[in-house]
Amino acid sequence: MSTAVPRLRFRDARIEMAHGAGGKASRRLVEGLFAPLLLGASPGPLGDAAHVSCNGSRIAITADSFVVRPLRFPGGSIGELAVNGTVNDLAVSGAKAEALVVTWVIEAGLATETLEAEVRAMAAAAERAGVMIAGGDTKVVEHGKADGMYITMAGFGQPIAGVSIAPRSVQPGDKVLLSGPVGDHGITILLARGELDLEADLRSDTRSVLPLVTALAAAAGPGIRWMRDPTRGGVATALNELARDCGAGIHLLEAAIPVHDCVRGACELLGLDPLHIANEGQFLAVVAPEYAEAGLAALREAPGGAEATLIGEVHGEPPATVLGTTGYGGTRVIDMLVGDPLPRIC
Amino acid sequence: MSTAVPRLRFRDARIEMAHGAGGKASRRLVEGLFAPLLLGASPGPLGDAAHVSCNGSRIAITADSFVVRPLRFPGGSIGELAVNGTVNDLAVSGAKAEALVVTWVIEAGLATETLEAEVRAMAAAAERAGVMIAGGDTKVVEHGKADGMYITMAGFGQPIAGVSIAPRSVQPGDKVLLSGPVGDHGITILLARGELDLEADLRSDTRSVLPLVTALAAAAGPGIRWMRDPTRGGVATALNELARDCGAGIHLLEAAIPVHDCVRGACELLGLDPLHIANEGQFLAVVAPEYAEAGLAALREAPGGAEATLIGEVHGEPPATVLGTTGYGGTRVIDMLVGDPLPRIC
Repeated sequence: MSTAVPRLRFRDARIEMAHGAGGKASRRLVEGLFAPLLLGASPGPLGDAAHVSCNGSRIAITADSFVVRPLRFPGGSIGELAVNGTVNDLAVSGAKAEALVVTWVIEAGLATETLEAEVRAMAAAAERAGVMIAGGDTKVVEHGKADGMYITMAGFGQPIAGVSIAPRSVQPGDKVLLSGPVGDHGITILLARGELDLEADLRSDTRSVLPLVTALAAAAGPGIRWMRDPTRGGVATALNELARDCGAGIHLLEAAIPVHDCVRGACELLGLDPLHIANEGQFLAVVAPEYAEAGLAALREAPGGAEATLIGEVHGEPPATVLGTTGYGGTRVIDMLVGDPLPRIC
Repeated sequence: MSTAVPRLRFRDARIEMAHGAGGKASRRLVEGLFAPLLLGASPGPLGDAAHVSCNGSRIAITADSFVVRPLRFPGGSIGELAVNGTVNDLAVSGAKAEALVVTWVIEAGLATETLEAEVRAMAAAAERAGVMIAGGDTKVVEHGKADGMYITMAGFGQPIAGVSIAPRSVQPGDKVLLSGPVGDHGITILLARGELDLEADLRSDTRSVLPLVTALAAAAGPGIRWMRDPTRGGVATALNELARDCGAGIHLLEAAIPVHDCVRGACELLGLDPLHIANEGQFLAVVAPEYAEAGLAALREAPGGAEATLIGEVHGEPPATVLGTTGYGGTRVIDMLVGDPLPRIC
């Protein structure tokens, strides 16, 4: 960090919901304000977790705040999401979560049973993910603030041997793998709010992806160039960030991307693209071509990976762009999420 | 963590402000609900940071949420507090902060200049404290929900060689050291809210205590039994927690405890005890008697430690109690903070 005052590119006068949605506005805020002031002059591509040296070892560190509304939804709840989301941020950075520290901002007047349910959900998710909760902190704010509760989860992990993630190592010929169907989490949250007159038999996909990442690493570790869990902003935003960071063109076979019928239906009704919808239990990986077949097979054999699929390939052109090949042979540019059609899904 | 359902001792039906105030109600919530479900059956005394093994090394980890209101106050602001508070939690656990990860929960509509001021305050505090900011996360919530912003800071550090903190190692004869005057932060925040018709020339004491902890460790490292930064709940609560954890009686010389006149005056007017008021740039240490003189001298010679003082001694009796000797020769029991006279001071 330098005492010189960096020039800031972020010019929006106020912070709006879109700045937290994980799409273009979020990226402008991070790259134009947070990164130059906090991370130094050239932090490089920003991943889901940072790998730093501490006491002679490499450790992976991450932290995320969770403000999902409602607190409980089909398939999960904020407490479970906080554990899985943090374990997953570490996993896709190439690290196994070892310990979590949780902080609570609780709204005064919250029923203890509501809090207890989330503490239990958190404990159960941590046990399933094989991670220890090592400590925490609690603040209480006045009634009317904080929507019941906000949770922040810090996570610490150790790098998975033989896995090295670097967006700039992605190159033409690499294959894009996806762990399973997209959009379940975001559409579940949208329906759970009850603001739309829609019903569907749909559940959040929240889970730890560490077992899948571990299976992929065992079969294709040296070939893994990049991984990401496509949460806010969805698959489209995650791959656009990669395309920008590596400068390549990413060509997707749209027909190959698994989307549950009710997610596709809800998106059509609402004018949304399933590739912009948030996921909580899926991840994307770019692997070197000679590792793609073995990696995909390993994913499919791992529990929860039956729907893993190869969804695209990296090309030299067009630069820094994501292209989709539609089912009818046409192509379209797939952009990052713009605005915030689905606020507060995690 | 076990799948058996632990019996919970926390019986309050709702979460109230006092549960976040750092006193008795906070302790009941942590010990009766969070610890049994999240930390396992017998987590032992809960410190400011956890020391865990990761990738073959010991690392110290902590996380705290900051919800101080107002965001800026004489002597500091929420961004600076988040850095210093986290560095200090690590320092008093016997660790040097190496990296921080910051998460922001921002209220929609916040002026960018307000956010930028806190980002700059954070960067400056991190530079002063010699700690790197390694990453972060941003969420935005609707207008009215988050008092401008809440900040959560996760911190990672490496243990300071030769320092081992264990409340249960505290024993009769040990000396209690305090780094400087108490109550400045809490009373500054109270006055900054403008709800009281009081004015005083007072500033928050927010700062990194790491230089002082380092000086103490260099002079008296093997003699340090326990350290704590007396934030929410103040000196009285921190020492009561220690008394409970070690079972001893802690005798304080109240006349020896430095309190600025305006803090004492405000406390008298408001019926508060300065020992219950939060501090952000002070710490307590219990040291073995043979190290007390050297430790105190080292503190006083270190920058910012001129007012360090010996404030008490550990006795065998009365068990698990903090006693104060008043200026007139009497004694009183000094209890933990009860209720929440000063909400949201950090």
